[in-house]
Amino acid sequence: MKLSLIRNTCGILRGQRTGHIVSGLSRRCLAVGPSSSSLLLRAAYATSSCRLNAKVSFDLGKHPAKEDVFECDSSLREVVQHSKKAMAALQRKNSAIQPTLVIVQSSEDVNMWEIHKKVAEMVGLKISQICLSKHSTEDEVIEEILKLNEDPSVHGVSIHLPSSFLTSRVVNALRPEKDIDGLSDVNVGRLLRGDSGQSFLPPVASAILDLLKNHDVSLEGKSVLLVGPEGPQTYSLQALIERSGMQASKSHATAKNLQKRVMKADAVVLLGEGNINVPPAWVRPGAAVIRENEISTKLGSGHLVAAYRIQNLIRWLQEQQYRPWSLRSLKLKPLTPVPSDIEISRAQTPKAVTVLAEEIGLLPEELEAYGRNKAKVRLSLLDRLQSQPDGNYVLVAGITPTPLGEGKSTVTIGLVQALSAHLKLNSFACLRQPSQGPTFGVKGGAAGGGYAQVIPMEEFNLHLTGDIHAITAANNLVAAAIDARMLHEATQSDKALYKRLVPSVNGVQKFSPIQICRLQRLGITKTDPESLTPQEVSSFVRLDLDPKQVTWQRVVDTNDRFLRKITVGQASTEKGQARETGFDIAVASEIMAILALSNSLEDMRSRLARMVVGTSRSGCPVTAEDLGVSGALAVLMKDAIKPTLMQTLEGTPVFVHAGPFANIAHGNSSVLADKLALKLVGREGFVVTEAGFGADIGMEKFFNIKCRTSGLKPNVVVLVATVRALKMHGGGPGVSAGAPLPKEYIEENLGLVAGGCRSNLRKQIQIAQQFGVPVVVACNVFKTDTEAEVALVCQIARECGAADAVPCNHWALGGRGSLELAEAVKKAASKPNHFKFLYDIEMPIVEKIRAIAQKVYGADDITLSAEAEAKINYYNQQGFGSLPICMAKTHLSLSHMPEKKGAPTGFVLPIRDVRASIGAGFIYPLVGTMSTMPGLPTRPCFYDIDIDPVTEEITGLF
Amino acid sequence: MKLSLIRNTCGILRGQRTGHIVSGLSRRCLAVGPSSSSLLLRAAYATSSCRLNAKVSFDLGKHPAKEDVFECDSSLREVVQHSKKAMAALQRKNSAIQPTLVIVQSSEDVNMWEIHKKVAEMVGLKISQICLSKHSTEDEVIEEILKLNEDPSVHGVSIHLPSSFLTSRVVNALRPEKDIDGLSDVNVGRLLRGDSGQSFLPPVASAILDLLKNHDVSLEGKSVLLVGPEGPQTYSLQALIERSGMQASKSHATAKNLQKRVMKADAVVLLGEGNINVPPAWVRPGAAVIRENEISTKLGSGHLVAAYRIQNLIRWLQEQQYRPWSLRSLKLKPLTPVPSDIEISRAQTPKAVTVLAEEIGLLPEELEAYGRNKAKVRLSLLDRLQSQPDGNYVLVAGITPTPLGEGKSTVTIGLVQALSAHLKLNSFACLRQPSQGPTFGVKGGAAGGGYAQVIPMEEFNLHLTGDIHAITAANNLVAAAIDARMLHEATQSDKALYKRLVPSVNGVQKFSPIQICRLQRLGITKTDPESLTPQEVSSFVRLDLDPKQVTWQRVVDTNDRFLRKITVGQASTEKGQARETGFDIAVASEIMAILALSNSLEDMRSRLARMVVGTSRSGCPVTAEDLGVSGALAVLMKDAIKPTLMQTLEGTPVFVHAGPFANIAHGNSSVLADKLALKLVGREGFVVTEAGFGADIGMEKFFNIKCRTSGLKPNVVVLVATVRALKMHGGGPGVSAGAPLPKEYIEENLGLVAGGCRSNLRKQIQIAQQFGVPVVVACNVFKTDTEAEVALVCQIARECGAADAVPCNHWALGGRGSLELAEAVKKAASKPNHFKFLYDIEMPIVEKIRAIAQKVYGADDITLSAEAEAKINYYNQQGFGSLPICMAKTHLSLSHMPEKKGAPTGFVLPIRDVRASIGAGFIYPLVGTMSTMPGLPTRPCFYDIDIDPVTEEITGLF
Repeated sequence: MKLSLIRNTCGILRGQRTGHIVSGLSRRCLAVGPSSSSLLLRAAYATSSCRLNAKVSFDLGKHPAKEDVFECDSSLREVVQHSKKAMAALQRKNSAIQPTLVIVQSSEDVNMWEIHKKVAEMVGLKISQICLSKHSTEDEVIEEILKLNEDPSVHGVSIHLPSSFLTSRVVNALRPEKDIDGLSDVNVGRLLRGDSGQSFLPPVASAILDLLKNHDVSLEGKSVLLVGPEGPQTYSLQALIERSGMQASKSHATAKNLQKRVMKADAVVLLGEGNINVPPAWVRPGAAVIRENEISTKLGSGHLVAAYRIQNLIRWLQEQQYRPWSLRSLKLKPLTPVPSDIEISRAQTPKAVTVLAEEIGLLPEELEAYGRNKAKVRLSLLDRLQSQPDGNYVLVAGITPTPLGEGKSTVTIGLVQALSAHLKLNSFACLRQPSQGPTFGVKGGAAGGGYAQVIPMEEFNLHLTGDIHAITAANNLVAAAIDARMLHEATQSDKALYKRLVPSVNGVQKFSPIQICRLQRLGITKTDPESLTPQEVSSFVRLDLDPKQVTWQRVVDTNDRFLRKITVGQASTEKGQARETGFDIAVASEIMAILALSNSLEDMRSRLARMVVGTSRSGCPVTAEDLGVSGALAVLMKDAIKPTLMQTLEGTPVFVHAGPFANIAHGNSSVLADKLALKLVGREGFVVTEAGFGADIGMEKFFNIKCRTSGLKPNVVVLVATVRALKMHGGGPGVSAGAPLPKEYIEENLGLVAGGCRSNLRKQIQIAQQFGVPVVVACNVFKTDTEAEVALVCQIARECGAADAVPCNHWALGGRGSLELAEAVKKAASKPNHFKFLYDIEMPIVEKIRAIAQKVYGADDITLSAEAEAKINYYNQQGFGSLPICMAKTHLSLSHMPEKKGAPTGFVLPIRDVRASIGAGFIYPLVGTMSTMPGLPTRPCFYDIDIDPVTEEITGLF
Repeated sequence: MKLSLIRNTCGILRGQRTGHIVSGLSRRCLAVGPSSSSLLLRAAYATSSCRLNAKVSFDLGKHPAKEDVFECDSSLREVVQHSKKAMAALQRKNSAIQPTLVIVQSSEDVNMWEIHKKVAEMVGLKISQICLSKHSTEDEVIEEILKLNEDPSVHGVSIHLPSSFLTSRVVNALRPEKDIDGLSDVNVGRLLRGDSGQSFLPPVASAILDLLKNHDVSLEGKSVLLVGPEGPQTYSLQALIERSGMQASKSHATAKNLQKRVMKADAVVLLGEGNINVPPAWVRPGAAVIRENEISTKLGSGHLVAAYRIQNLIRWLQEQQYRPWSLRSLKLKPLTPVPSDIEISRAQTPKAVTVLAEEIGLLPEELEAYGRNKAKVRLSLLDRLQSQPDGNYVLVAGITPTPLGEGKSTVTIGLVQALSAHLKLNSFACLRQPSQGPTFGVKGGAAGGGYAQVIPMEEFNLHLTGDIHAITAANNLVAAAIDARMLHEATQSDKALYKRLVPSVNGVQKFSPIQICRLQRLGITKTDPESLTPQEVSSFVRLDLDPKQVTWQRVVDTNDRFLRKITVGQASTEKGQARETGFDIAVASEIMAILALSNSLEDMRSRLARMVVGTSRSGCPVTAEDLGVSGALAVLMKDAIKPTLMQTLEGTPVFVHAGPFANIAHGNSSVLADKLALKLVGREGFVVTEAGFGADIGMEKFFNIKCRTSGLKPNVVVLVATVRALKMHGGGPGVSAGAPLPKEYIEENLGLVAGGCRSNLRKQIQIAQQFGVPVVVACNVFKTDTEAEVALVCQIARECGAADAVPCNHWALGGRGSLELAEAVKKAASKPNHFKFLYDIEMPIVEKIRAIAQKVYGADDITLSAEAEAKINYYNQQGFGSLPICMAKTHLSLSHMPEKKGAPTGFVLPIRDVRASIGAGFIYPLVGTMSTMPGLPTRPCFYDIDIDPVTEEITGLF
């Protein structure tokens, strides 16, 4: 290996150093002259100037030279002081931050390192050194640079290599943000354009300018001659000199008229590595001569250069802390009549997700693009922005819906389109990922609709970034492990099982970490496999799962009704261990519920381990960790835990993450997406998240389960109502999918509307108010609604205690149609907020169920079946009593009876059974029977779905 | 809407034009002066110069001005001629290419458009115009630019907008490759760095230089004064002037000493938009004055500027045609003893996939990154490189393996590492994606091993880019559709089915395109649903699938043995339609075999439609298209059809794509990955692809099925042998997974080695030779092998007809350990090659089976069961007789008897049954029983797999 690599950190230089002396990076750009001569900035050549401890004098008007250390030192003090303050401010905001500079050098130049070490210490910066051999190849240098690019603990890189190493490839390999010397093409271009704040000023150039500017004589109109080879950094220096009001001109070192030009100049700067011959006699009296190659390496000015370098690093770090948005919204040109969802989606060209990410202040390393239109966002963002205050947190819920749905997703998207694209307030929508099953089954998109959509809608509705596939794989690995384990236990002795479970490797048996966890749960503290008693071996190797009490089901993300109830294990290889079980649709998996509730990778990992998959014959819960599969599950889910970034039709950001069922699970998108979004939008911004089904289901679970887990407090509830659903609650005829709407729903009927408002809407507003959060009612306007109907809804909603109630026309108009709602939400968010949970987590399970039934559903009381009672006792006994409650109840009525509309009273809620999702962390009482596997109709919508093989355009998807 | 947009193509300017006159893009950078004055390049101001048809004179020495049109015109002729030739060459190579320039302007400037139109016509370039309103916002301009960036039919964009529009955001929004005016920061930086070939010279600057250079007086040392505002383009012009040997200096238009400086200059260039006051009296006799703002708009020089602009576009296009690789290999530092696979993988930092893609000549728009380390490659690459000759095509196959496998994947990877990283020959490995099932079941990676691996190996072994998940979703959608359809047919009348299948929308019934295909297959040519007879309705609505003859199985990508045989449909909602069926592992799906064999999206779409899922009660095959699901399947598979790019441990490129089983399917990676790779490596390059199992299985199918489908001809076969497997074939004791190796395999035993070489190795070499392709034997060296054993293998292999035989040590050393193999392959590839198929496709099915049994396996003959014979008759009758044969036979012996090692003779091959994959396009005879669903052992390797929640490092994965 040719590469010899030494890394020094925090100022200790050790070990082998190879290569010749290099004055640093700036050598190529700005440094010149023989290494024996000193830095000079003086009138004519002083013979005394060959000193290592350079002293600086710059005097355009006087002669002879004045040597004055403090000219330089005062600048140094100022720059260091400034950086020190900035560092302290950074660390006050985020104590975890450890700004780090890396010097890449091929050098025995102790000076360079000592200088930087000293200034870094003064400022409080961490500094590391990478020494490359002088025999390193270009590829090897680039490899080092690319590693530094991606190392999140490195904030700036300075490359001090001989100019032969500083090829275009090398210089441009360094990420512009870490290129604190401003060497790369894009940084040079930016500097020349003069965009303040975008480019880094090359530190050597800054130091030279500083020396010039600190002089008391006006620089305006003075002429500076730059002598030496050309290069991008020469132009940078020239630009900076010219911007200071001086004139800069250039000459080759070998130009015939060099002497003549030197004699005319007020200052001469000698560039490049060669020893340019400019005899003192050429320099006219009073003029200055600067040999730049020494500026950065000598002890005096070298400190100033280092300080400027560090200042560049810190400035970039400051910018990273929280980056204000510069969101470019996409224009909408809504058509009448409104075209199909996929036509609208396709007519809009989304921004590349990398562009969107930059606009909302994400760093490139925080993004994992999945193609052009979607990307996963890394959770490290939470660390970077930990000191950033959260934005406003808005929940979109709904009244009790008709079977057709009332448009909560479109309201959510319309609202953020209005907030971001029209009111110019940072806002984020957080949505659930839809199941792919219904996409091919019954028509109905989940990406919103009309002019309030997530685009490209086909990507939203198909594989997305594979999260549901990962959940499917994880869920089914557990299932396969359960059945295989039952088979192996049924067909092997304790001894044989033990021999296989704890195999001998090179004669030594050893428990894996996951097995030690199981031993601890069994109360066995031994760690030597040979020391277990036969009884202990037996309890270790036998999970002894009762096949009849396995609660874990397999899942697929397909509407496959024939998998609802099946018998598995009928092949002869499974030795008669057949048993009945079933498949759920993938989003019903407990792993989906866990994904939505996890606060971190670690949290998810431990929730996955805790999942109870069944009960042993002796009545003990058996967990995923008992099966030895919990680590593998976390590995399968490691990417799924990162939320997916997409955008609305108006180019505003959306997180899509998790999509648990709102009936048997909690029906909310992920805690992590909300948390990331709340940091990104900033204090004045808005995060709009959506809860499944009616407020009695999704919202209640949002407050009592999701907010309890996340610790987040919502500021506003938006309650979506439609004239259609209100008419139904007011006594209108039944509404069902596929059948034409009765005329009551097409013609004006204020009586039905008023009835619905005074029953269901009033009750749902009251439910939200119990949690202490202001409610804004959004009346999602359909084209058949009359103005009087919509006005009536808004009027009664306000009478019932809503902070405000407004119509929304986002479906037809996009964000512009939701402006009133956006204003109302903004106003409500500024109101005082007294958020509280409905019940104390330590209350007995029965009391928690009763609290929900009475306070939310309006029931007189609850009744428990014998089975339910037994399960509650069992859960209490297992220590699961302190979990929140996740009711499994129809979404079509506030009661358990789907046909009871309005706000039913005088009923008793029957609890048929009680189950537990220990990993997700809730107890779920069953009120009635919920299907967890949809079916396909006779003519599924896949009949219309196709792709053009040439244009790759998809047709028929909604 | 404020935006008013007009698009003109091919020189026809129509419709509304808004905004004021703009001279074009160059206005901001290089153009100056009032629009009424002419372009001038003349000694002092001639009063006659105010002419639209600019004439050019440049005379540093003479006075008065000479006006000479031809000075300019000859340059123009030359530039146009050059571009014209380049265009013709481009189109000869790729007739589909239609180079297109887009002018974005906010202008009524007909001149600008007419000039470009004329030059474009001369060159043969397509040209379009986008006119923006002067009221357009910055965001609207950027939106247009971003669309042009991503439009693959646009090859260059020139932005001619007033300077107030040309903000940094606008200018830098344009992708540098399309920025043919060289305006963006990165292009300015590149130009100043002087990297030839990377940057675009600004066309106006080129035109000015051209005028100067065409003059007969030497320019060396002449002084040019640039007067006007600063900007990056000023520096570009300055750099170009200085590189021509002149001196350039700059002055503000308002500088006090302007007159003095003008008087000294040999030429003066007036920059910017303002009217700079330089009275003729200031200009010294013989000096030239140039007003740049007119250069691009006036009819004379404007043509030259346009020609330079077009030249830039064409140069970029030329570079796009085939881009030579600049592969930076990653250095290896192999350790002894060799660490675990995941430790080796983790110790190497892979290049970002975007970096790798650029190195191998992919364009950014051809890549869809999936996170940092993997990306899908778009099939449009095949169009771009259609004229590019293919590289060498190398197949890696093996001798009959032990159950432990003999390392074909490591040989494949070691070989490309040696070719690319050491011999510096472009090379690509094409591998199959492994199933996730075994990853969590029995130890054994598929990413290679030791120092010949694909990295990061955990991403290779986990979800990758979701292709297998997509196949699972597509496969199971077919299954759900089958069962749901049988249920609906069983419970509904013809009339009810028809009403639902062809629903009335707004009173009109209409067939979907997919239904019309079914009608055509039924011989019904009607298209009006109302016109079908009851008999026709019945045959249309009833697929009449026989539940006992449904051959389609569900799949999961999990080792779930309990799903091998199951009963579905046992819930009451399925109304007694329960039936027995089973799950296969996902890679066994016919859709996987189709993915591997498809030549395009269209080809895949039609193969998916042709898939036969079962037989009707009347004996007709029922297809996916009959179910109406074929379009949806193509939609689900639209991303999966793009191969995934990854890299080896030494940073060389790898395609991972498709992974069908080598027993029941063809066991080869995808045709499309091979085709893309063959174009990318170029004529001298190598594509190394791998066939599953022994040469008798994978290689035979590679030749007879895959090459027949793709039309590709292999150049070399690499036959992998191990001393271990050869000893087994030479009579050594049995080898089985999990059990320790008998001592014969650990100690030297030349007799056993020789025996194995003279039986199995000789036979496998002969098999390859039957196809007319040279064979190189690669002896994959294990640490227990002795030198004499390895030498013996190589010696006998050569005796048996191998072109060469060499040892490989890639596992321990990486590519360096495979250098001998790489040299041997390179040499063999240059040998004449007489590739031919083993059988004619039109031969009867039985004869094709017999040919394989006799010529490949060495059987005396075949016998057919009654069932097999009946099936063959049925397939013949259905028109499936002309398909190739895909034998389903054990891989553990050349015969059908796994225990028969060496080269068995004197046996008759029994064909138990025959099946057909009509979509994939082969008939597969069953010889014995093949498991299509693996199981989990007592201690699956998931026990060791975990993730560190902080570092996200995965442990225990191999």
